[in-house]
Amino acid sequence: MKNIIKIVSVCLLIFVTSCKEQNQKEVEQSTSKEFTEELNDLERIEPPHWWTGFKNAELQLLVKHPNIGSYTPEISYSGVTLENFHQADSPNYLFLDLEISESAKAGKFNIVFKQDDGKELVQTYELKSREKSAEDYIGFNSSDAIYLITPDRFANANPENDEVEGLLEQGIDRTHGYARHGGDIQGITEHLDYIDNLGFTAVWPCPVLINDMPRGSYHGYAMTDFYKVDPRFGTLDEYKNLADELRNRDMKLIMDQVANHCGLQHWWMKDLPFKDWVNYQDYYLENIDNWNRETTKMSNHRRTTNQDPYAAKIDNDGMSQGWFVPDMPDLNQRNPFMANYIIQNSIWWVETLGLGGIRQDTYPYPDKAFMSDWAGAIMTEYPNFSIVGEEWSYNPLLIAYWQEGHENKDGYDSNLKSSMDFAMQKQIIDALNEEESWDKGLVKMYEGLANDFAYTSPKDIMAFLDNHDKSRVYTELKGDAVNTKMALSYLLMLPRIPQIYYGTEILMDDFDNPGDHGLIRTDFPGGWQGDTVNAFTGEGLNAEQKEMQNFLKKMLNYRKESKAIHEGETKHFAPFEGTYFLYRTHGNETVVHIINKNEEPIEIDLNYHEEMGLNGKTLKNVITGETMVWGDSIKLNEKGSIILSTKL
Amino acid sequence: MKNIIKIVSVCLLIFVTSCKEQNQKEVEQSTSKEFTEELNDLERIEPPHWWTGFKNAELQLLVKHPNIGSYTPEISYSGVTLENFHQADSPNYLFLDLEISESAKAGKFNIVFKQDDGKELVQTYELKSREKSAEDYIGFNSSDAIYLITPDRFANANPENDEVEGLLEQGIDRTHGYARHGGDIQGITEHLDYIDNLGFTAVWPCPVLINDMPRGSYHGYAMTDFYKVDPRFGTLDEYKNLADELRNRDMKLIMDQVANHCGLQHWWMKDLPFKDWVNYQDYYLENIDNWNRETTKMSNHRRTTNQDPYAAKIDNDGMSQGWFVPDMPDLNQRNPFMANYIIQNSIWWVETLGLGGIRQDTYPYPDKAFMSDWAGAIMTEYPNFSIVGEEWSYNPLLIAYWQEGHENKDGYDSNLKSSMDFAMQKQIIDALNEEESWDKGLVKMYEGLANDFAYTSPKDIMAFLDNHDKSRVYTELKGDAVNTKMALSYLLMLPRIPQIYYGTEILMDDFDNPGDHGLIRTDFPGGWQGDTVNAFTGEGLNAEQKEMQNFLKKMLNYRKESKAIHEGETKHFAPFEGTYFLYRTHGNETVVHIINKNEEPIEIDLNYHEEMGLNGKTLKNVITGETMVWGDSIKLNEKGSIILSTKL
Repeated sequence: MKNIIKIVSVCLLIFVTSCKEQNQKEVEQSTSKEFTEELNDLERIEPPHWWTGFKNAELQLLVKHPNIGSYTPEISYSGVTLENFHQADSPNYLFLDLEISESAKAGKFNIVFKQDDGKELVQTYELKSREKSAEDYIGFNSSDAIYLITPDRFANANPENDEVEGLLEQGIDRTHGYARHGGDIQGITEHLDYIDNLGFTAVWPCPVLINDMPRGSYHGYAMTDFYKVDPRFGTLDEYKNLADELRNRDMKLIMDQVANHCGLQHWWMKDLPFKDWVNYQDYYLENIDNWNRETTKMSNHRRTTNQDPYAAKIDNDGMSQGWFVPDMPDLNQRNPFMANYIIQNSIWWVETLGLGGIRQDTYPYPDKAFMSDWAGAIMTEYPNFSIVGEEWSYNPLLIAYWQEGHENKDGYDSNLKSSMDFAMQKQIIDALNEEESWDKGLVKMYEGLANDFAYTSPKDIMAFLDNHDKSRVYTELKGDAVNTKMALSYLLMLPRIPQIYYGTEILMDDFDNPGDHGLIRTDFPGGWQGDTVNAFTGEGLNAEQKEMQNFLKKMLNYRKESKAIHEGETKHFAPFEGTYFLYRTHGNETVVHIINKNEEPIEIDLNYHEEMGLNGKTLKNVITGETMVWGDSIKLNEKGSIILSTKL
Repeated sequence: MKNIIKIVSVCLLIFVTSCKEQNQKEVEQSTSKEFTEELNDLERIEPPHWWTGFKNAELQLLVKHPNIGSYTPEISYSGVTLENFHQADSPNYLFLDLEISESAKAGKFNIVFKQDDGKELVQTYELKSREKSAEDYIGFNSSDAIYLITPDRFANANPENDEVEGLLEQGIDRTHGYARHGGDIQGITEHLDYIDNLGFTAVWPCPVLINDMPRGSYHGYAMTDFYKVDPRFGTLDEYKNLADELRNRDMKLIMDQVANHCGLQHWWMKDLPFKDWVNYQDYYLENIDNWNRETTKMSNHRRTTNQDPYAAKIDNDGMSQGWFVPDMPDLNQRNPFMANYIIQNSIWWVETLGLGGIRQDTYPYPDKAFMSDWAGAIMTEYPNFSIVGEEWSYNPLLIAYWQEGHENKDGYDSNLKSSMDFAMQKQIIDALNEEESWDKGLVKMYEGLANDFAYTSPKDIMAFLDNHDKSRVYTELKGDAVNTKMALSYLLMLPRIPQIYYGTEILMDDFDNPGDHGLIRTDFPGGWQGDTVNAFTGEGLNAEQKEMQNFLKKMLNYRKESKAIHEGETKHFAPFEGTYFLYRTHGNETVVHIINKNEEPIEIDLNYHEEMGLNGKTLKNVITGETMVWGDSIKLNEKGSIILSTKL
């Protein structure tokens, strides 16, 4: 038996060696060739270009061209080695493994694809120089405040690109919540002064890559080409320009990426490279003519199977391999070519845009091991970068689980610097909606925040009151603007990375049909020519809206410069008679956040707060500018939040 | 400056040395004396006796006697050294530090207390031999099922002790929920056959130590002497007898201990040894004549301050130092003499009764650092012992935090083998009460159990459906006996230590006033002479009650011998169309627990469960004894739980 194994091993060795020799020969043959002219014979090569100088020297190119599988590729470029190439299940794909050594210089070279019969295809490929050092890609952090935008609904700077010929969904209909409304990248760029002045330091637009889908394409989460900007949102240059304009203001651009799925009209769905490129691929192809919500192998959405030590394998598989919706094929990240494709695509965008962070959609749905590799690969290239994953769960155990460095008993480490605080979101809303009692009301905020004891790094968690998928905070708080202010100022005081959804500053709502996505993502007034209300200028806003804009602006601009809020010590006192005090302190700066839920004035004994050491100090109201001396007690006249700072 | 420190140090050294010399001299003087007769001059010495052979050689005796502080103690007994002695703030206490070396033999010796004027008091003290080895104190574990009893309400074996002359609360009133009803230790002992036959393997009676309180003394949590059994419950010998009788049946006795507080009528409250023996002691003494709920410095009950990294110190102090209720002085475990007292008291009871575990009341209220020391001291002496702490919280983060070995970021380790699963209790109740939907109903059980990923040792956590403080499960489940059975069989299938409250087996309820403590702790029928219903014999029980007794008996007796349930692998499938399958497997034994919430019959495809490897196997219904062959599907006819086992 041992001998048989030996013989087989030797045979394999000979086979491998001969393959290598063959590859080497080909490389040697092509070494003599030099780059002369740019040729683009191929239908598609991805990533469309790459860079020198990454820590990971490997690059895997996806090549798509009729019958390309029958060609043999050759590369002759100093410092670049074609290590291997792989045929796919479809004859129209070839995957090339390149090694880009440290000595490789930026430049162009031709990849030559040869057939036995002498037929030849040539594709020029470019390696660029990296523009800044890896350490300078600083991700969002607790010093930031993020403005989340649904690009189709924010501002339509360029009506020319509202409708683009040849795309599946045509037409603009601003009266329809699920139709395209015409907002675009340029619309964001042109209003950066507004966002900047409000005091935000980062912008997270929902995806702007092409969704060439027959309907619902406005939301952006059904990408049909991971390397192409949706022309209705603009061009790659406009996207780059947005990034540049943000950078000029010392602001960050966060890209919304999706590793779990693509749009059903993704170009590769017509000719899938491998039999297992997407999950349930065979089943999809068998049922393609009758593909709907009933026939689709949908995800069971039982996300706890990711952590549950007792989960049945079939449930876990059904969760991560089932499709999110019938229109979104579920990518199979266990296919190593797909894995490389997604990782490289993410890095391509970080490098192309000089990103200040990635928000990863539907985080618990893709293959979990892959997601760790994915984030790890990005963080290896950009050690100061940030990635936040979306897990819509109110369970703090899961928030803790997904953050890097947490001691998970299954040994999993996500490599994610940030997770999303849906738990705190719910606690804040409940706290303000509920009548005060022993275990209701403000204690929900207080005990929600107490859960920070379980998090590896609370200040790196992203907190929010709503987002593009959730009913707006003003609606959740039943149209109570005072409560909305309380929620916002509290959010901005937390040891967190706060995210605020566009329009919150003017109390946008979804009262007419709470939770309706189209309504949540209402057009921002002033973003369209002819809008009678213009929130950018303040024209037509009512007093409550203006007051909210002003309140947020004051709060955000204070936060922007506040080391106490960015990285200070946190201290809070158990809610007492409808009031709740939260303190942040750094050096000489102490910021006090007081919530008073009482309609009647109330006087609070400050001797109980003696440990904060504020007695006799002068503090300034961050919103009104008034000053007061911290004494034995404080009289709270109005229901609302008061923010006081020792920074005068 | 350095020189001054040196001089002071030298002086101190001389002082310490001379003290030691003095002590040594005294010891030498008394070495000649031998034990002749038993003398008991002192009012009180605690612990009343001790043992040789503990790992911890130190013993601190509390001595109480008028003006004892002015005496100097002497001990002359081979292997026992009086290391030190301490005066207290009250002249009537003395604390003696003994070192009991490995060479010390069991026996009696006299402690002689001398005054300068020659006055002498003599107290005989005994060191006993330990009856069994430390390793043989096996604590409750997942092979156990615990029967929780409120002793005053279970069975009155001895009407003679119902009223005891001299105690503050007199009278028996079975019509009043908060009066004494006459149940006693002997009542438990006499019904061990019943408990044993039901299939329980451990009994946890609520405290039976003396509560000489003017009212509400029946519950037992306001102890007025930590070394004395309440005579209305019986004698120490009866308590020992209960322990012996349980041991004879291979069952365990769990003692309910309280380290947080005592009863206001505790003997030491009339003459407190130290100024800081109880928390807010000065304040209490100042207000003693007007002591009520308004004047008491009550705990703020904000238990999250134990974990909360942001909690104000004053809140944390207020939580742990405030009194639980005005009738229960809050013990100050930060006083090292109190700390020793509590630890020794616990060990005294473990050793005296040969306990099979401790349940520690109000676990998050005493000083947290002390509680870790306390549990650590016990577990050091009894490495296979178990302690469970009560934290009434539905937050799994806290359940995880309190269990030993959990990687707490604050470095805290409780040394508690077991914590209490209030979270799962709520999930089970909600799961069965709610209508099925995407995120309601059975998914609550499923996702609740999934949280086990965060626990160091789920199977060492104590689970339950109700207890002496909570509305009874039958009431919580709205009088639905089928749902109650589902809840119980599920509980008994979990990787947990299940605890069931007495009377659950006959559907005892508190419908008349849900949550009322007196009502929850209703008398067990048959426990009193003249009871027309006798649940021990079955006389007068209705069909539903008998069926529940039988159901529980079958389930518990199966569980008793089931390695699959005690320590098997757990697997469960996401709830599907109102059904939920849970599997436990060990070797050849697989137990399947199926919940069907549908009123209509439903057929479930078992091919989905293929990974369980049961196809073609014969399984037996644990309750009915019927067998079936595992095939492609299973038809569930009735709403309820089905328990199937491969053990035929």
